[in-house]
Amino acid sequence: MSRKFILAIDVGGTNLKAAVLDLRYAIKKKVILKTKQSCSKDGLIAAITACAKAIIDEAGLQKRDLLGLGIGLPGPVDAGKGIVHFLPNIPGWKEVKLAAILKKKLGLPVYLDNDVNLMTIAELTLGAARGFQNSLCLTLGTGVGGGIIIGGKFYRGADNAAGEIGHVPINENGPRCNCGGIACLEAYIGNERILQRARSVFRRRICLEELSLLARRKNLKACRIWLEAAERLGIALTSAVNLLNLDAIIIGGGVANAGSILFNEVKETIRRRAMKVHARHVKVFRAKLGNDAGLIGGAILVREAVAHGG
Amino acid sequence: MSRKFILAIDVGGTNLKAAVLDLRYAIKKKVILKTKQSCSKDGLIAAITACAKAIIDEAGLQKRDLLGLGIGLPGPVDAGKGIVHFLPNIPGWKEVKLAAILKKKLGLPVYLDNDVNLMTIAELTLGAARGFQNSLCLTLGTGVGGGIIIGGKFYRGADNAAGEIGHVPINENGPRCNCGGIACLEAYIGNERILQRARSVFRRRICLEELSLLARRKNLKACRIWLEAAERLGIALTSAVNLLNLDAIIIGGGVANAGSILFNEVKETIRRRAMKVHARHVKVFRAKLGNDAGLIGGAILVREAVAHGG
Repeated sequence: MSRKFILAIDVGGTNLKAAVLDLRYAIKKKVILKTKQSCSKDGLIAAITACAKAIIDEAGLQKRDLLGLGIGLPGPVDAGKGIVHFLPNIPGWKEVKLAAILKKKLGLPVYLDNDVNLMTIAELTLGAARGFQNSLCLTLGTGVGGGIIIGGKFYRGADNAAGEIGHVPINENGPRCNCGGIACLEAYIGNERILQRARSVFRRRICLEELSLLARRKNLKACRIWLEAAERLGIALTSAVNLLNLDAIIIGGGVANAGSILFNEVKETIRRRAMKVHARHVKVFRAKLGNDAGLIGGAILVREAVAHGG
Repeated sequence: MSRKFILAIDVGGTNLKAAVLDLRYAIKKKVILKTKQSCSKDGLIAAITACAKAIIDEAGLQKRDLLGLGIGLPGPVDAGKGIVHFLPNIPGWKEVKLAAILKKKLGLPVYLDNDVNLMTIAELTLGAARGFQNSLCLTLGTGVGGGIIIGGKFYRGADNAAGEIGHVPINENGPRCNCGGIACLEAYIGNERILQRARSVFRRRICLEELSLLARRKNLKACRIWLEAAERLGIALTSAVNLLNLDAIIIGGGVANAGSILFNEVKETIRRRAMKVHARHVKVFRAKLGNDAGLIGGAILVREAVAHGG
């Protein structure tokens, strides 16, 4: 019997998603598992293994039905060697040969990549970046991540580390960034920075959902916070647009829920600041695949690796 | 008899260079012609034609010895269609079908491109970018131009307009740039801006050569001007390095003559501000081909177009 399904897992800072997808990347079954932030390395590997086995069982599948497992991780990896360099928000991970470990435990081919890379690959294949030759996908969350598509293919750069739009400096001087840099975009518009700003403006604790809701209801203070964040995002994107003469920019992640106020100001900033030819050409879209992008990207990774004999 | 030579012309704001090169891109003969800045469109086309004919004669060649003419222009072009969109420093040029015009006048195949693109192609094929998969070549002059190499190939972007490192914003607010943008790198370190800065520091007129000489002699004021320019260049390059995870950066053009003070500070700024993996990987070199890069790039353009049946 031919292998007609793919297993995908998306490891986040607070939860673990697992899914079985068919060869057209439709999700047939999905489970979400809470993981403790402080989860140890071995604990997390055990959780991944258990989760994989459970969803195979639940879907009524056998190993022989599966092409393999694709797994996305929130940190820098060596996709070719299947090694996780480290996970910034999950302690105890350093140079973990995760693909080999899981292959042994599950008896399946295992491929891994960074979660933002998988989101980009998914949006390129099935989502908002489909059909564009040169584009940038970014996700706005705790961090600001990105992936680049050049000539219709995912572009990895020298160390599989390209696409770091969150670490484009937007000022000569400014706040210190977690990456060690200065005045990086992420140091202004990472979730925590936006919430800090909101707390100081509203003089109370406020969450992103409320801040987005207030903006949609035209609350002036909330609108101003989003406009400021969107303008800064637009400035970093101006760098990418002038450098790469992009066809499209795809924006996803929680902060993208702020909606039209964010998107309009990003577009307006690019129109105002990028070079005319570049600004006229580039289109800005919202990501299409939402929270499932990582799982879909994981499945694509497996299918393409198998197709290329990987 | 087989066609063993290539004609190349490099059109600048103040002069016209023409050369005959062999198929290994060695320059066999070269002439430089002063052109008036205010040269009309027809006048410049006549000068290009005359210059081409003169150098063919001087080299003792016939048309049948030549593969074609490659020509570099200081402005945006459509390389595929052979059209010059406009030339910022030479008035009267707008959507000129230069390749077709010269082909008719000279009876040779004609290919054209932007001068910075040709410099990048030359450095990639024969110069400092040779052997690197992903790199950025930039030239520091009146403007700050750039070209990008991705996967060992020259990357054009959607409208043949990629590589504009001079128009990466380095501040949210700052000086208005000639491109219409705000706080672009070029608005800080274009030749004129550096000279303005030097005039205000030294309280007299001073040229770039003297400013470079003073810095090499450790004049503190001159050093400070170059360090400031180099740091700003390093900040814009940090954007490119974090986005593209580059193997190499190649710096050419007149300002690069400031030498080690400039290069050391650029490297130090990237080391200090770019992400660790990215900063560790990227190498910064001086361009190798100097003022002949445009001519060599023009010859490469012709040879590759002919090889691909173009």
